[in-house]
Amino acid sequence: MKKYLVEFIGTFFLVLTVGMTVIDPVVAVGFAPLAIGSALMIMVYAGGHVSGGHYNPAVTIAAWLRGRCATADVPAYLVAQVLGAAAASFITLYLKSDPTVTPKEIVFVPALIAELIGTFALCYVVLNTATAKATAGNSNYGLAIGFTVTVMAYALSGISGGAFNPAVAVGGTLMHLVKVSNLWVYLVANFGAGALAALTFKFTHPDDK
Amino acid sequence: MKKYLVEFIGTFFLVLTVGMTVIDPVVAVGFAPLAIGSALMIMVYAGGHVSGGHYNPAVTIAAWLRGRCATADVPAYLVAQVLGAAAASFITLYLKSDPTVTPKEIVFVPALIAELIGTFALCYVVLNTATAKATAGNSNYGLAIGFTVTVMAYALSGISGGAFNPAVAVGGTLMHLVKVSNLWVYLVANFGAGALAALTFKFTHPDDK
Amino acid sequence: MKKYLVEFIGTFFLVLTVGMTVIDPVVAVGFAPLAIGSALMIMVYAGGHVSGGHYNPAVTIAAWLRGRCATADVPAYLVAQVLGAAAASFITLYLKSDPTVTPKEIVFVPALIAELIGTFALCYVVLNTATAKATAGNSNYGLAIGFTVTVMAYALSGISGGAFNPAVAVGGTLMHLVKVSNLWVYLVANFGAGALAALTFKFTHPDDK
Amino acid sequence: MKKYLVEFIGTFFLVLTVGMTVIDPVVAVGFAPLAIGSALMIMVYAGGHVSGGHYNPAVTIAAWLRGRCATADVPAYLVAQVLGAAAASFITLYLKSDPTVTPKEIVFVPALIAELIGTFALCYVVLNTATAKATAGNSNYGLAIGFTVTVMAYALSGISGGAFNPAVAVGGTLMHLVKVSNLWVYLVANFGAGALAALTFKFTHPDDK
Repeated sequence: MKKYLVEFIGTFFLVLTVGMTVIDPVVAVGFAPLAIGSALMIMVYAGGHVSGGHYNPAVTIAAWLRGRCATADVPAYLVAQVLGAAAASFITLYLKSDPTVTPKEIVFVPALIAELIGTFALCYVVLNTATAKATAGNSNYGLAIGFTVTVMAYALSGISGGAFNPAVAVGGTLMHLVKVSNLWVYLVANFGAGALAALTFKFTHPDDK
Repeated sequence: MKKYLVEFIGTFFLVLTVGMTVIDPVVAVGFAPLAIGSALMIMVYAGGHVSGGHYNPAVTIAAWLRGRCATADVPAYLVAQVLGAAAASFITLYLKSDPTVTPKEIVFVPALIAELIGTFALCYVVLNTATAKATAGNSNYGLAIGFTVTVMAYALSGISGGAFNPAVAVGGTLMHLVKVSNLWVYLVANFGAGALAALTFKFTHPDDK
Repeated sequence: MKKYLVEFIGTFFLVLTVGMTVIDPVVAVGFAPLAIGSALMIMVYAGGHVSGGHYNPAVTIAAWLRGRCATADVPAYLVAQVLGAAAASFITLYLKSDPTVTPKEIVFVPALIAELIGTFALCYVVLNTATAKATAGNSNYGLAIGFTVTVMAYALSGISGGAFNPAVAVGGTLMHLVKVSNLWVYLVANFGAGALAALTFKFTHPDDK
Repeated sequence: MKKYLVEFIGTFFLVLTVGMTVIDPVVAVGFAPLAIGSALMIMVYAGGHVSGGHYNPAVTIAAWLRGRCATADVPAYLVAQVLGAAAASFITLYLKSDPTVTPKEIVFVPALIAELIGTFALCYVVLNTATAKATAGNSNYGLAIGFTVTVMAYALSGISGGAFNPAVAVGGTLMHLVKVSNLWVYLVANFGAGALAALTFKFTHPDDK
């Protein structure tokens, strides 16, 4: 139960930061990727030792395929993450006083590629810095994981909006940043990238079970 | 005595950075949350081994409830923090040559919620990264703690001003950034969030006394 | 083979971030050096334990001269890095829909000096933080290495464009950010700086074989 | 000799970054403090194990008073630091093509206070994170030290220019950022702050010889 609460809390703060910095920003444009990646970083450092600090269904799938998330935990993790994203979305809309939000326009193929690339980077960094035996005990995993979202958001948010996370995509839909008719793009690309990253990990770490 | 001096110094530099970057900024707007969170980070790294590196009465209450701050130290910590904030406020006003400051306008309920959320995040990250047995010995606690303020300031300063710290709120009042009639909002929300974070820690770390 | 794949992946993400943030930026100007250096940081943390995390032919030469890269690996590393850069360049041009790019104008001598200085800093930081016995086991090597590119790009990109990496220079040429007729400037200065950094390491670490 | 070379190199890159980002900036204003503090960070991580990574005469004095710099090394450290600053200044002026520079106007008393406060913070963080027995073996000292300059530059550069370092002040004079007639302000405040930080360290670490 405590693991699910930690996943709820972490995803809540990640999606709250997305909503509050992207919708009708009060801070200068350009800082949102820094804030969002840092939100992931702080929650990975705060909760990693309890739940693994996924806060992202694609990461949960990647960790499960790599053998670092129990099968019995997967559904509850996904539920906790989506509930955290939903709670953050409603609080964001309340704090912003029902803002007028213009959903991101995307083109399907480039957006699919951008979400695939960005989510692959995130899951690849998670598996290599937080689950590989060769990097056990380091203090940099949260910095590396959080700043992967910062980097990919600077690089790719112009193409796809930059979710790299099905829970963020669901939250983005509830906050009208993502069109409901585009949600499948994120789900397909993000989960696909998580699986691809797990395969890549197995290939590059053949002796690390 | 040395613990109280370290709390005084750390809170001094935190509030000085708040005042100098928020009042009549000479640096580009948008960098204040980065500077303020980094001020907390450097002081946590510099003083954590002496005093715990709280620099925040809400953190002191959370650490005390979690059993990591002696009851006898609590009043002196709060006094040192408030004195550090006051000293920084007067020096800021002097260095800025008695600036004209427009206090932040807030709406009570959203501001209470924003301060509660932001301070909860801060105390949650402090307890999990700097007091949990499972994360002992890490080098990332200061980065995680400082950047929690950076993240929450980017996300929530438009709603509440983003104090997340009663000593910062007192300093903000002395510098006319916070209206005296609004000070209770910060005190209630920040101390309440500290207590809530301590409860959350106990629930998620049942075996960590 | 897994080492070469990791070098391909890391250089891919580095050059993708260069292209996506420098060409027709959708994010505020000024964040590109932060994003690009952070891209290197995350890939160093993710892949350092597999391949050394070079992602840069000049770093590979410096590591080889310092005795931390097998001679047999050098050609394959360079090929993997250039292929990663090329793949990232083509994907960038596709995602940007064949953008109009204005190549950087440079003056030969200042650009040679700027690339020499910046690449020296990078190779010097790599050798000292990631290969010296006295700093073994630290968690900061990726932060130091990545932010060297961030710092040098803020300082020197106005003079030379700020590649500090032959693979980035090749990618920049494919993306029309670098004129083909200027490519030699980067190759000469970057490889020369890598050799100079290796000499400096040997002088400052006489007992570290 | 290798220690002095490392001090030369580190101060060179610190002052080069100051000059290139402050004079006639090609990057967006506001990033200079981030770049300059990060320059110090990377050089502390790269050279700390060889020379202590001072790159600042005030830090050398503070480390000497605290007993972590041999008396015989002090003069050579100061010479190496000033030479590194001078070399960086001349290269900056060359790369910028003899730029027109407007020296910072300061008011003596506020500037003295600002330099005293900022340099105290820097030396306090250096002594506590890089020389205290209680924090030995951490990976965060460079981040803490570098970002102290970032924070203090955001907070105080509007008042004093933000040198916090006699070698930077000398370099700033050579680059016409600092008036020769104001140089004494930096020397007095910076060395005074270094001594004050050493005293503070001794008071807060009575058992740490």
